[in-house]
Amino acid sequence: MSIVVLTGGVGGAKLVLGLIHTLLPGEVTAIVNTGDDFTHLGLAISPDIDTLLYTLAGKANAAQGWGREGETWSFLAALRSLGGEDWFALGDGDLALHVLRTARRAAGEPLSAITADFARAWGIGAAILPMSDDPVATVVQTGEGPLAFQRYFVERRCEPAVQAIRFEGAETARPAPGVIEAIHAADAILIAPSNLFLSIDPLLAVPGLRAALGKARAPVVAVSPIVGGVAVKGPTAKLMRELGLEVSNAGIAAHYHGLIDGLVIHNGDDAAEGVQLALTDTMMRDDRDKMRVAEVALMLATSIGSR
Amino acid sequence: MSIVVLTGGVGGAKLVLGLIHTLLPGEVTAIVNTGDDFTHLGLAISPDIDTLLYTLAGKANAAQGWGREGETWSFLAALRSLGGEDWFALGDGDLALHVLRTARRAAGEPLSAITADFARAWGIGAAILPMSDDPVATVVQTGEGPLAFQRYFVERRCEPAVQAIRFEGAETARPAPGVIEAIHAADAILIAPSNLFLSIDPLLAVPGLRAALGKARAPVVAVSPIVGGVAVKGPTAKLMRELGLEVSNAGIAAHYHGLIDGLVIHNGDDAAEGVQLALTDTMMRDDRDKMRVAEVALMLATSIGSR
Repeated sequence: MSIVVLTGGVGGAKLVLGLIHTLLPGEVTAIVNTGDDFTHLGLAISPDIDTLLYTLAGKANAAQGWGREGETWSFLAALRSLGGEDWFALGDGDLALHVLRTARRAAGEPLSAITADFARAWGIGAAILPMSDDPVATVVQTGEGPLAFQRYFVERRCEPAVQAIRFEGAETARPAPGVIEAIHAADAILIAPSNLFLSIDPLLAVPGLRAALGKARAPVVAVSPIVGGVAVKGPTAKLMRELGLEVSNAGIAAHYHGLIDGLVIHNGDDAAEGVQLALTDTMMRDDRDKMRVAEVALMLATSIGSR
Repeated sequence: MSIVVLTGGVGGAKLVLGLIHTLLPGEVTAIVNTGDDFTHLGLAISPDIDTLLYTLAGKANAAQGWGREGETWSFLAALRSLGGEDWFALGDGDLALHVLRTARRAAGEPLSAITADFARAWGIGAAILPMSDDPVATVVQTGEGPLAFQRYFVERRCEPAVQAIRFEGAETARPAPGVIEAIHAADAILIAPSNLFLSIDPLLAVPGLRAALGKARAPVVAVSPIVGGVAVKGPTAKLMRELGLEVSNAGIAAHYHGLIDGLVIHNGDDAAEGVQLALTDTMMRDDRDKMRVAEVALMLATSIGSR
């Protein structure tokens, strides 16, 4: 089997982990959003890539939902004592990824090669591919003006009402090495239950990536982020309302219209039309949950078959 | 009073602390070696500046002799797990200085302004001035070829025999803002018991700084790094032998010939000729020791008087 997952951070990483436990790690390729990437204190930070690395290496802080297990915070305390910007929480161990990535990128290495090395060093068998090695920056247009993604998401905690979202640099960004090949070779393409606007749309805004999905022989199956009429976490439901989309599986299917063939929805939630459905408990609390959602998504893809 | 101290890291920081306890902090200006500065993993590291900051802010790890008290090491462990270079020990709290300095220098700010801000943030009343805002790199010529300072000092632990030492960039380096003014205004100029070749010579290699010392009205008094015929710490004695200098106060006085008017030497050690001497126990273990050495150096300068 060869499975591709389009994913953002936390929720998507859970689905990828479920797939790895269900299949062999080498059968799974995660294509990861880099629209959240930003430079902070001179460091190149790739939040979603890092969440995949931590989750698949068994180093993620599950209770907190982000960052490393057993993290220490001496850096941030010292930074604060020096008057440095402390709105973005940089853990001591977490810094190693950022410092090493920044140094290697400054030496001309692409994000994809650095990410592959990190994954190899941590014994991760799945492929973790950034959507692009070219910079793409998610910018949120709010009533207060445009906000860079992390300013909106972390510093402002998604409070400002969103009018539009744009992906700076996306038009000219090329898919990272391996992305197109993985999509062409895939037996199934899954879209993780990540935020559709902030995590999946940046991927779809990369022209070559979008085109490859359109030409893929594999069925495309999304796992809905809606559970019981609300989004499992983060600002998904708030954004759907602000951007004029019904907070429902019908809304999800409408947003992904023309892209997906199937949708995995939570037991008892509204059924969407125009796509094939599979139902299960889509809340991914433990590894058993993650494997169940992965299996249901794979079975739906198999039942749809090649396009 | 207005006292200037030319200093390297650990030993010099002790003398500066002794001066601050003896006088008022605002009366003391430390002009600090930056020949050890280097870029590691993309971070701008200024070891001697940082030792002064830690020591004067009461944050130094006295037992270890370098770095911060209560330091944690999550970054280095994570870096190692990713295959990053771990020969230079970067503590988690220590990283805050390097990351913030690197970001501010990349934004065009000079080392002197950044250092002054750090000192102010930590409540340090003495002035800590880098010898220059321009890059000067100490390069050690060994039997194995040239070695950048930190490679020689940390990675190779001063083992290769030294044939010569050069200070790249020194010829065109300008003294940092305040350096010349402090030397002109000084009532006494002290040379800390730092390594003469690796900590003090880089300062003297900055042409404007050397010229200002020659024109200063204040007497110049060095504290000898020799105690009982051996150097207190580090590679001073080994370097003196390798570079053909007698390991004695006479050797120290010969090296500083034409520069110093007085020399503070350890009780019972050899007397040097051609300079005025003061004797005391020059080992600086505790604050009482540091104050005594500072007081003896100041008294010798006072007895010498203006040139």
